[in-house]
Amino acid sequence: MPNSFPTVQLALKPGVIDLAWGQPDPQLLSVANMQRALDLAQKQFGADMLAYGADAGAGPLLDYLWRRVQEREGRALTHEQIMLTGGNSDALDQICAHFTKPGDTVLVEAPTYHLAVRILRDHHLDVIPAPTDADGLRVNALQELLAELKRVGKHPKFLYIIPTFHNPTGASLSAGRRRGLVKVAETERLLIVEDDVYRELAYDAPAPPSLWSLAPDGVALRMGSFAKSLAPGLRLGWLTGKAEQIQRLALGGLRDSGGGVNHFTAMLVAAFCEAGMYDAQIATLRATYRERRDALCDAIARFMPAAAFEKPGGGFFLWVNLPETIDTQTLRARAAEYNVDFIHGARFFTDGRASNALRLAFSLYPPEELQEAARRLRKTIVT
Amino acid sequence: MPNSFPTVQLALKPGVIDLAWGQPDPQLLSVANMQRALDLAQKQFGADMLAYGADAGAGPLLDYLWRRVQEREGRALTHEQIMLTGGNSDALDQICAHFTKPGDTVLVEAPTYHLAVRILRDHHLDVIPAPTDADGLRVNALQELLAELKRVGKHPKFLYIIPTFHNPTGASLSAGRRRGLVKVAETERLLIVEDDVYRELAYDAPAPPSLWSLAPDGVALRMGSFAKSLAPGLRLGWLTGKAEQIQRLALGGLRDSGGGVNHFTAMLVAAFCEAGMYDAQIATLRATYRERRDALCDAIARFMPAAAFEKPGGGFFLWVNLPETIDTQTLRARAAEYNVDFIHGARFFTDGRASNALRLAFSLYPPEELQEAARRLRKTIVT
Repeated sequence: MPNSFPTVQLALKPGVIDLAWGQPDPQLLSVANMQRALDLAQKQFGADMLAYGADAGAGPLLDYLWRRVQEREGRALTHEQIMLTGGNSDALDQICAHFTKPGDTVLVEAPTYHLAVRILRDHHLDVIPAPTDADGLRVNALQELLAELKRVGKHPKFLYIIPTFHNPTGASLSAGRRRGLVKVAETERLLIVEDDVYRELAYDAPAPPSLWSLAPDGVALRMGSFAKSLAPGLRLGWLTGKAEQIQRLALGGLRDSGGGVNHFTAMLVAAFCEAGMYDAQIATLRATYRERRDALCDAIARFMPAAAFEKPGGGFFLWVNLPETIDTQTLRARAAEYNVDFIHGARFFTDGRASNALRLAFSLYPPEELQEAARRLRKTIVT
Repeated sequence: MPNSFPTVQLALKPGVIDLAWGQPDPQLLSVANMQRALDLAQKQFGADMLAYGADAGAGPLLDYLWRRVQEREGRALTHEQIMLTGGNSDALDQICAHFTKPGDTVLVEAPTYHLAVRILRDHHLDVIPAPTDADGLRVNALQELLAELKRVGKHPKFLYIIPTFHNPTGASLSAGRRRGLVKVAETERLLIVEDDVYRELAYDAPAPPSLWSLAPDGVALRMGSFAKSLAPGLRLGWLTGKAEQIQRLALGGLRDSGGGVNHFTAMLVAAFCEAGMYDAQIATLRATYRERRDALCDAIARFMPAAAFEKPGGGFFLWVNLPETIDTQTLRARAAEYNVDFIHGARFFTDGRASNALRLAFSLYPPEELQEAARRLRKTIVT
């Protein structure tokens, strides 16, 4: 038994450059500004920070997000169409609880975020993969899959998708496919659950429009989050969608009993955002992570000419395809010898297939260490 | 549409003394000490406050609770037998998600906390009431109920119970019944889900031992919370039980993906507690709420001689029985005329029965206003 409980998830082995962790660099987190925000929040809100929060979430933060989402995404939003969540994991968990029952079918991309699949399976859902390529989900293939499922009497409750700066591939769904997917979803009455956690981390151009902003009301539920753009330990996000969908969660027993999620932190973050510190933080993160992405892409291209990858326009991840003879799962043991780590591609497929791909996160290390990681990866593969 | 989103749940009408709200008095919340705690936490924990928290919850707070629970309750606890939750509403929601499926049967006391029933029903559970009297749950009647359910092929997944300073009755389960209940639960393999949120608010003597502390490993899951003893807006609590049960929640997909619940606040509260501010806060709350309880009890006895009640040993609530001819639901319209409010007894029964009882919360008002509330209630009834 350990002497004390662990504090955080992140656990790095000394000497190992571990590109498996899809987490923000702790050194980029704005610890001191949180103190400033608490000063501001306490002056402005006093005891309201500590009371039961309003069911849909802390008003001051919803005010901020309500304005911001409309300004940035050019889509009008009523007060009933947005609520706070405890981050996207919590949002997905609550969507499962309120919109599915055990045995229901849901769709995910292949590959997809492996831990979202764990949440879906905890709700005893039948998780079916839909094929993707370098432009993201293949909408035609999705249509075929839906037709096939219909023939066996199955109607998926929703499609979980990360269309923007995808985890693990870094890809963004092309503009044409966004329109196509929205149309298919509308026609087939397929709810889109859009994981939009990387939206603010766009390095070359503004992020593509969210599926939610393109879709008719009720077609898409969009999960936004402060986890990557501000700090994961805050456990705060937001959900936009049709009023009826949002209010099903916001007016449920959980919120009626306990009040809005994570209220104290939400009030603090409201003050943080209103003081302009959120936009400043995003600017810092973009500049820093852009440099890291470039460094890793350059190093992989230089040291691993046999590796194929697309440079991601944002997010945390580089998805590298090695020659097809290589199973990256068996490669990890060799990587350990060279003090480097990654997640093997198979982890992101629900059907347990082997994969010659691997996911590299460039968020956690400065450029020099990313270059060194590429050198070690080369040795892992070449030797 | 309102101009802005509401900040908190609590909404009082000017001039009305509203004893319906079972909430802490905002003026007793330790806003300034939170600032002090953040100073301490930032110095001690730095960026660890903002990173993904460990799955079972922030280590420093678990360290504190692990020691405290063992010291106070005299029961040894392994590291695997405790985890943090987002308060008891979150804990109950997660227990439903992981230990039940739609259509399962669960038991509650009659009366019980009405909003817990909403959470149970959101999970599509069949909620069956078990009879109580002034000493709490009638264990013999529970045994008969279980036998009756067994005859129709039903085995309840758990019993949700508030054995200590009950909501709404204020009653505590007697020592004999605690032992009896634990024995029945063990024999009948009935999981006890113990809502222990009022434990620290004991006004006359230490709170009775938790069912969890009396029961063999695996028989009871105990939900503790900071909501009443520190602040509801923090959304923080803890869960103790068998390692296998606790780890089913702590190692689920939700925590694997998002990290421990409400991590930043948990780290702040760890510093708050370790600095001795939690014990100081509890001492203040006990003294203040004791005075309020006494004031309301005295005033009800003086102004409403036809009202029957037991003085509660802790918690927030007085459960008042009026003459049987009075339906307290219809009484509320008259109460509004006299600028006083309460929750009518029927709300706390799952079968929609009428009730001559009402729940008065004494937590929110100073003694003089509680006396005035009793005067207004008398007018409501007498006129």
